[in-house]
Amino acid sequence: MISTAIINVTSYTGLELLRLLAQHPQLKVTSVTARSLAGKTLVDVFPQLQALAATTAIDPTMVIAEEPAQTDLAFVCLPHAAAAEAVVRLLERGTKVVDLSADFRLHDVAVYEEWYKHTHPAPALLESAVFGLCERYRERIAGASLVASPGCHSTTAILALLPAFARDIVEPDVIVDSKTGISGAGRGLTLGTHFAEANEDMSPYSVGGHRHMPEIKQELLAAARDGGHALSDIRLTFLPHLVPMTRGILATCYATLAPGAVEKSLSSEALVELYREYYAGEPFVHVVDQPPHTKWAYGSNHCFIYPTLDARTGRLIVMSCTDNLVKGAVGQAIQNANCMLGWPESLGLAGAGVNP
Amino acid sequence: MISTAIINVTSYTGLELLRLLAQHPQLKVTSVTARSLAGKTLVDVFPQLQALAATTAIDPTMVIAEEPAQTDLAFVCLPHAAAAEAVVRLLERGTKVVDLSADFRLHDVAVYEEWYKHTHPAPALLESAVFGLCERYRERIAGASLVASPGCHSTTAILALLPAFARDIVEPDVIVDSKTGISGAGRGLTLGTHFAEANEDMSPYSVGGHRHMPEIKQELLAAARDGGHALSDIRLTFLPHLVPMTRGILATCYATLAPGAVEKSLSSEALVELYREYYAGEPFVHVVDQPPHTKWAYGSNHCFIYPTLDARTGRLIVMSCTDNLVKGAVGQAIQNANCMLGWPESLGLAGAGVNP
Amino acid sequence: MISTAIINVTSYTGLELLRLLAQHPQLKVTSVTARSLAGKTLVDVFPQLQALAATTAIDPTMVIAEEPAQTDLAFVCLPHAAAAEAVVRLLERGTKVVDLSADFRLHDVAVYEEWYKHTHPAPALLESAVFGLCERYRERIAGASLVASPGCHSTTAILALLPAFARDIVEPDVIVDSKTGISGAGRGLTLGTHFAEANEDMSPYSVGGHRHMPEIKQELLAAARDGGHALSDIRLTFLPHLVPMTRGILATCYATLAPGAVEKSLSSEALVELYREYYAGEPFVHVVDQPPHTKWAYGSNHCFIYPTLDARTGRLIVMSCTDNLVKGAVGQAIQNANCMLGWPESLGLAGAGVNP
Amino acid sequence: MISTAIINVTSYTGLELLRLLAQHPQLKVTSVTARSLAGKTLVDVFPQLQALAATTAIDPTMVIAEEPAQTDLAFVCLPHAAAAEAVVRLLERGTKVVDLSADFRLHDVAVYEEWYKHTHPAPALLESAVFGLCERYRERIAGASLVASPGCHSTTAILALLPAFARDIVEPDVIVDSKTGISGAGRGLTLGTHFAEANEDMSPYSVGGHRHMPEIKQELLAAARDGGHALSDIRLTFLPHLVPMTRGILATCYATLAPGAVEKSLSSEALVELYREYYAGEPFVHVVDQPPHTKWAYGSNHCFIYPTLDARTGRLIVMSCTDNLVKGAVGQAIQNANCMLGWPESLGLAGAGVNP
Repeated sequence: MISTAIINVTSYTGLELLRLLAQHPQLKVTSVTARSLAGKTLVDVFPQLQALAATTAIDPTMVIAEEPAQTDLAFVCLPHAAAAEAVVRLLERGTKVVDLSADFRLHDVAVYEEWYKHTHPAPALLESAVFGLCERYRERIAGASLVASPGCHSTTAILALLPAFARDIVEPDVIVDSKTGISGAGRGLTLGTHFAEANEDMSPYSVGGHRHMPEIKQELLAAARDGGHALSDIRLTFLPHLVPMTRGILATCYATLAPGAVEKSLSSEALVELYREYYAGEPFVHVVDQPPHTKWAYGSNHCFIYPTLDARTGRLIVMSCTDNLVKGAVGQAIQNANCMLGWPESLGLAGAGVNP
Repeated sequence: MISTAIINVTSYTGLELLRLLAQHPQLKVTSVTARSLAGKTLVDVFPQLQALAATTAIDPTMVIAEEPAQTDLAFVCLPHAAAAEAVVRLLERGTKVVDLSADFRLHDVAVYEEWYKHTHPAPALLESAVFGLCERYRERIAGASLVASPGCHSTTAILALLPAFARDIVEPDVIVDSKTGISGAGRGLTLGTHFAEANEDMSPYSVGGHRHMPEIKQELLAAARDGGHALSDIRLTFLPHLVPMTRGILATCYATLAPGAVEKSLSSEALVELYREYYAGEPFVHVVDQPPHTKWAYGSNHCFIYPTLDARTGRLIVMSCTDNLVKGAVGQAIQNANCMLGWPESLGLAGAGVNP
Repeated sequence: MISTAIINVTSYTGLELLRLLAQHPQLKVTSVTARSLAGKTLVDVFPQLQALAATTAIDPTMVIAEEPAQTDLAFVCLPHAAAAEAVVRLLERGTKVVDLSADFRLHDVAVYEEWYKHTHPAPALLESAVFGLCERYRERIAGASLVASPGCHSTTAILALLPAFARDIVEPDVIVDSKTGISGAGRGLTLGTHFAEANEDMSPYSVGGHRHMPEIKQELLAAARDGGHALSDIRLTFLPHLVPMTRGILATCYATLAPGAVEKSLSSEALVELYREYYAGEPFVHVVDQPPHTKWAYGSNHCFIYPTLDARTGRLIVMSCTDNLVKGAVGQAIQNANCMLGWPESLGLAGAGVNP
Repeated sequence: MISTAIINVTSYTGLELLRLLAQHPQLKVTSVTARSLAGKTLVDVFPQLQALAATTAIDPTMVIAEEPAQTDLAFVCLPHAAAAEAVVRLLERGTKVVDLSADFRLHDVAVYEEWYKHTHPAPALLESAVFGLCERYRERIAGASLVASPGCHSTTAILALLPAFARDIVEPDVIVDSKTGISGAGRGLTLGTHFAEANEDMSPYSVGGHRHMPEIKQELLAAARDGGHALSDIRLTFLPHLVPMTRGILATCYATLAPGAVEKSLSSEALVELYREYYAGEPFVHVVDQPPHTKWAYGSNHCFIYPTLDARTGRLIVMSCTDNLVKGAVGQAIQNANCMLGWPESLGLAGAGVNP
């Protein structure tokens, strides 16, 4: 068993880690921390966790500490900046880290500082940190001490567009219209996440620019480069929307076919095949040939992707669904940990979404 | 008082007409029809309507007939094709008609037949039928006998994009990513509208092409032409999505600024002003300078539009919200009737959305 | 026109007053107040209200003041204790007041102080304040300067049980299992009303005792007394539950038939008739003979009541539905104001619920 | 591995069995049937199940048959009457059966026929069938060939009231006000489960009598008898309500304390202790000392029970929450199968609810 800490366990990602790690055969939670609720037990904060006592290895009476005990592995669920500081300390004591914040996702410090509006707390670590998308970087993740798990919108959009950029079938001009359930906004109270406001409502947000955009761009540029056709930039519009549901992301991506693909008269069927071939063998990415539903992924680590062509305009449309708290956050973090530790990526993550 | 018939009253648009006409000072419902439930009373089908008895002019014990009685005005809530047949008969007896179906929205019979897959039942009427968007055609509606009220997605998207096409600030290359509440699918039972399937779920639909697309294209082309810069075509992608809420449409529209607008360095503020000036004096279209919420329009005839520029890409993004059953259907139909009868367009339609 | 103030307009009841008064032909909002947001305009706080500008008499650019201007009438939307203090000042300057707080609902100061845990700020007013249920006290309301509009749970439960207590058909032993939409908790942010917590969840609350209980008991005792059979007390259990919807209350009430009713072999049909006779002529109370739906009342001032007998146990079961923000709060407050001013009670309140 | 059949796999209970059995280490699904969709594969009916292929033992391309193959175990998900016929055939070929229908829950044929309005298809099996509540009958279930898994409302209410009846602390006069998510109504399409009708709505149903009532009464009488104080009957009112959420049941149970409990001045704390002692060691029943939330159980086999006293009336109130599809149906069925096969009851069922 690998001893494991959850840093900032009182967040939604912390709670979801407890749920998923309760099913994991090799990761044992031995330390949990939070700043404001230190001294409380898990069950004080989340009464429902007493259900874990009888049938899992999680101890719901575990006391929440201010600082983590020494463990082999840690999941960091802190906001950006605070996360980087915790990561530095954890690495110093030899703990492997999966960081769920944005602090180590962007390779370019200048881009980070432009979007996050503060000096990066640990730029020296950016070189060794690996972007935690196993579908792209599993070899590098396997040897890493620090993995930066991508954001929920980013994961969903990047998986949707990777094959298109890797195989050079689209022009570098993309719109990602993303729709997310409200748990993505976290456990902090705001008027926009107040039930009476958010229920029966839909609205765009972060219209001036959302922080997941540079992650998406970085990874699509990398996919093109690794596919042998480097691009200088991508004209990327990313706009998220809030949907009255708890979990789930649907990214609808629009791009124009590259001339090469048009010349070859790429069909929708051939497109699905290209995607299937790209993701062959992936345990969690499923290319489908019908419109996907966010609910298919509810509570699971799966991603469903439907690429198609809009015959009238020659546009590529790719629809991609995940659970924002699982493949978009915690499930992917565990997948990364599995990969770092040399285990099958699906260890403790198998199973279908909760339907209906 | 103008005697009024509701054809196919047992639909959701029929029910919503009863609710709104109960507040109307000049339109009196004197005839209601439906095919399958003829012989029943309104209150047999909709028990909640007994609330109308004491305080409104609607009689909830009115018997649903197979055929309409003679009235001055009729709202036709039938599906396409059936609607056209009813419209012909109503016009023959001198009844003014607001048709909520798609039968008379498209001016080009060939386009209609391509999208609706059957021969148009009354092509001779296409010439005189007026597209029922008062914000564009109120002079022609005022003299019309037959007004074709636009679809819910169409209304929301057309209002979002009219100023841009009329004022020639965008290229004819547009994506409309539309999100609708589930009442838009009507009262017919399907697995996709079964609560346990649709709740906590979001999904695209009609990916191969939705019938509101040609309406949108027709009207944007007309706006450009009437604005003095005729276009040959628009490369328009329209993709609707189902959202787990009962009412509301949010259309997010993406377009590229035309070179002229770029040269003038059009700002977001100037854009909002351009839109405000275009819609000056409109009772139901409100240009806002923040992301709109579908709930703002809940139960009302209002449309909220937020046009902005994506500074990084130079794209125009326009977000537009309506209630699909009101401005997207029944409220607009009454607005059209008011206009046909020479009354203020907002007669019986005033008031804010139901919030929270 | 009667000049009208809304005290604490930034609450949900304040917002709903604006929506409903925008439709009212005789009440003109000329003053709005709030403590924390004084200096802002209505549209600063509620952007959707700009829709009121073109078609109603409400001016969305009205500035929110700290203190109300002199008006003929005021609706007080403050929390208890603060409400009483405002009421005193308003009455002193000759303003008629409808108070939506609990401060003047209970006739017995001791009961008030037991449940609200503070000294009553204005006990001298209790004598002249009238409990604002027009269905019971319209004669007294007509002459009153201060009307205390009842709570949402109270209204729904009292209307359900009044005929049974007035006509002496039940024993004084009642359970009210009440279920409410989440807007009843107000606009203040709490974890329990955070969307991700409240959605897809149901839970009881205030299990140790909810403050609407003494209102219900007071009114049922009064109904029995006025019906000619005074009771010393009622063994009343009242338990509210939170339901994942924005609006609506369903009160399910259980009681045992009194021996007299059993002797007469009261049938379910006779029971419905007894209720219909009791509520004959009421514009807003509708006795139905099938299970009611909260949605029937959505956005309207109506109450739907279904009384029936559980044949196997001889229990009376009464199900009652309202919109907690309308008949449960603001609609009823306007109904009271109409009554105070000698107008038809339904003035500005006509119309059906928003369905679907 | 035990070969396992799912009879009527296209129901929601069939789908949920696939999800949960995909996690089970000893039960292998080798046969699936359905009447109307025979010949299709699982993934034809439920596209999301392709996610099971890579990481679980369920084969999503398995063909749905009309008749089951020979297996060691079968879960029967058919409606009543059809279920009994299938059970007879399965038992004849030596298959152990967990029946999720009501056909073998009631010991008294006359009661069954009164409530289900048809002749019982296999009354001879009633003697040997065991009521599938492990918390009560695990010894008998361990040796059984046929286990009748209880209904969702029944399970939730019986678990809430068993300790009270077993320990003789209440009078035989009980009200169960039960609230259920909409998946309990199954996958069949009805207007009442149409999203636009059911969303933002709450309503009672089966007011004239619900079929889960006799199950509850049977088991509470048995608990009293086995506790040493036989009752002749219970005056039981059971009323279910539909709540706009997919999963979850909350049963609020009201009873009057028996004189013996009153004499001993039973406190709320002592009550919680009595319940904790009664359920000591149970893996899935958790006695809590605060109002429970249905969401705590979402997707899990847990039941949360909060017993308390209403000090003002001396009433016992017990609130009980389950997921209607798990502990209320499929999870309990697997728990029964585990028990029949001599395994730990929680095998394949461990883990917390999906929160938020």
